[in-house]
Amino acid sequence: MLKVLKFGGTSVGTLERIQNVANIIKDIKDDGHDVIAVVSAMSGETNKLLEYADHFSSNPASPEIDMLLSSGERVTSALLSIALNDQGYLTTSMSGREAGITTSDAHTKARIENIDVTNMRNAISDGKVVIVAGFQGVTSNGRVSTLGRGGSDLTAVAIAGAIKADLCEIYTDVDGIYTTDPRIEPKAKKLDMISYDEMLELASLGAKVLQTRSVEMAKKLNVNLVSRSSFSPETPGTLITKEENIMEKPVVSGIALDRNQVRVGLYSVKDKPGIAASIFTGLADANVNVDMIIQTVGVDGVTDLDFTVPKTELDTTKKVMAHFVNDAKKIDYNEEISKVSIVGVGMKSHAGIASKAFQALADENINIRIISTSEIKISMIILEKYSELAVRALHEAYNLDK
Amino acid sequence: MLKVLKFGGTSVGTLERIQNVANIIKDIKDDGHDVIAVVSAMSGETNKLLEYADHFSSNPASPEIDMLLSSGERVTSALLSIALNDQGYLTTSMSGREAGITTSDAHTKARIENIDVTNMRNAISDGKVVIVAGFQGVTSNGRVSTLGRGGSDLTAVAIAGAIKADLCEIYTDVDGIYTTDPRIEPKAKKLDMISYDEMLELASLGAKVLQTRSVEMAKKLNVNLVSRSSFSPETPGTLITKEENIMEKPVVSGIALDRNQVRVGLYSVKDKPGIAASIFTGLADANVNVDMIIQTVGVDGVTDLDFTVPKTELDTTKKVMAHFVNDAKKIDYNEEISKVSIVGVGMKSHAGIASKAFQALADENINIRIISTSEIKISMIILEKYSELAVRALHEAYNLDK
Repeated sequence: MLKVLKFGGTSVGTLERIQNVANIIKDIKDDGHDVIAVVSAMSGETNKLLEYADHFSSNPASPEIDMLLSSGERVTSALLSIALNDQGYLTTSMSGREAGITTSDAHTKARIENIDVTNMRNAISDGKVVIVAGFQGVTSNGRVSTLGRGGSDLTAVAIAGAIKADLCEIYTDVDGIYTTDPRIEPKAKKLDMISYDEMLELASLGAKVLQTRSVEMAKKLNVNLVSRSSFSPETPGTLITKEENIMEKPVVSGIALDRNQVRVGLYSVKDKPGIAASIFTGLADANVNVDMIIQTVGVDGVTDLDFTVPKTELDTTKKVMAHFVNDAKKIDYNEEISKVSIVGVGMKSHAGIASKAFQALADENINIRIISTSEIKISMIILEKYSELAVRALHEAYNLDK
Repeated sequence: MLKVLKFGGTSVGTLERIQNVANIIKDIKDDGHDVIAVVSAMSGETNKLLEYADHFSSNPASPEIDMLLSSGERVTSALLSIALNDQGYLTTSMSGREAGITTSDAHTKARIENIDVTNMRNAISDGKVVIVAGFQGVTSNGRVSTLGRGGSDLTAVAIAGAIKADLCEIYTDVDGIYTTDPRIEPKAKKLDMISYDEMLELASLGAKVLQTRSVEMAKKLNVNLVSRSSFSPETPGTLITKEENIMEKPVVSGIALDRNQVRVGLYSVKDKPGIAASIFTGLADANVNVDMIIQTVGVDGVTDLDFTVPKTELDTTKKVMAHFVNDAKKIDYNEEISKVSIVGVGMKSHAGIASKAFQALADENINIRIISTSEIKISMIILEKYSELAVRALHEAYNLDK
């Protein structure tokens, strides 16, 4: 098998941990697999370099930030290569450029445009373990570029897709994807498998193990992704794959919690055509991500409008809403809310999933303020203080601890 | 004028010092010059990275060491670029590769083979200050390489030669070349000018400001070199140039002291043809640099042979000499010696220079054990304890404090 492995900053955070990663690769190599390892900078390095830059400028040029930051991954790749080589394995480090990764010109947030796998394929044919400095590539101008947040994950997935690897394993300090956050529900179980779409819903809803961009790319390139831990490499992790590969489709795979939402309420909205459209166009123009929307018309004909936006975009939202103060009797913002979601591909073919959720929350006297559903997800806005209780109730209602 | 500046590890050792370097470049730019700055890694960085590598292997592969170490200069180049840019100057950092530097395949001690100045010339035409990560290039295989000790100086001189710069200024923590070591003779004077050949004699004899390789390259490429200090940029420094550019040729330019020699003495060497040749061939084969040689035949026909080797090569020398123990009555090694040298292009056309040196040392009752002379140099082996006294006596004898 050809495996692409990715080790994040925590997994290579000290010299001892780099040695540990070398041991993981050694075991995989000894099992007869070919290996391309993608590495991040040692944890703390990138922030240190950014602080250095900050010392000189509040607005440093992005190509220079890329020159600066890309050095961190190069150091890790060389060190890991030296460590493995010392144990008798043929190795070679590669910068993003040497790995054949070309990107767009958008420095600090470049998009991978192409990967010429010749160098990597030749090294693999020579029996070498290839160790790629993640998070970076080179623009058409020949300048080094970086991929932004989650860039090393993206590098690994894109390489796995380009070189048609059998597996792409993302090593973090968490040993897989759980049915819900184990800090909230200790009975949470690790999933063996999950579909790309479920993972996307869970990731965007707050399960922070895998970056949304990487899962999207894995889905697009049909890369079998594994989330596992470099701290307990004996644990198999969770496979993220296409739905067709999952034999027994669970009705519900997991419960996600997102505390980063604000509920915006407009009461007694004037009966003026197109008012909702104007509001949402205004928010879209200001790059505010509106998530859930509900509009209610009372028996007296009075209309209320509710929606949620991320807490980080509250200030922008308030500025946009200032144009609409005369269109409603009252506008208020409630930060004391959270969003719980039930995710599962099996929902498509099962009836009664939603009613079980509503019943479970009702049994705990938790009011649902907004509901939105998609093919594989049901999301509910509740008061923030009931978050943990709701997660545990739903986890139990769908027997996720079994 | 197009100036190539080089700033070593101490000059960029902290964020404050990088800011200081930015200010130096700013002033030069404001005077209307074009600037290419070559930078080293922040002092301490390279050693830190080597210690990291040492943690994993006692014998790391040299291409990986190059990948590792080259990151240090990249960081400095980006930071300096950000600092200058923030003050309103157009800048661009360049790795060795981006600066067009191709080298031999000898990783960790590569030779510069070619510099394609297109990128640098274009950036200069665009009004940019170019900041090059020193000490590195790229091999014909496309892998990053480093140039070994003094590599950033070499980078600067080679760029100055390739792009036909008017001046190459090497900034260190010393403000130029002195008539002798000011720690030994406080009356030592800074020289305004010195020829390449004199500088080479002074450098190889122990004046450690400029690496011999860089001066040799400057001579070959006809680059006007300036040695000056980043800590007192208002001081003009010393120009190292070709002899023809120096109007008033001083008889003696400086006095050098080298404590790193061992005198090897062979007493009553057997009258066997070719014995000296065998010894020196043996030492040459073992890569021992024999410096000064004297052979004396006494009235009784007994031959003594004396020569000096660097202290660092004493063990190897002893191993070679073990083959010759039966060819002399006695072989001894004296580490308690030092070599003082008088250097000056004017010697060529002046008589009586040597006798003045012998007289000056005789006046202080200092015995000269070995003498060797070249066109522009007289070297003398004396007992180590007289080193400082000899330097001061010679400095005064040639009026170097005037």
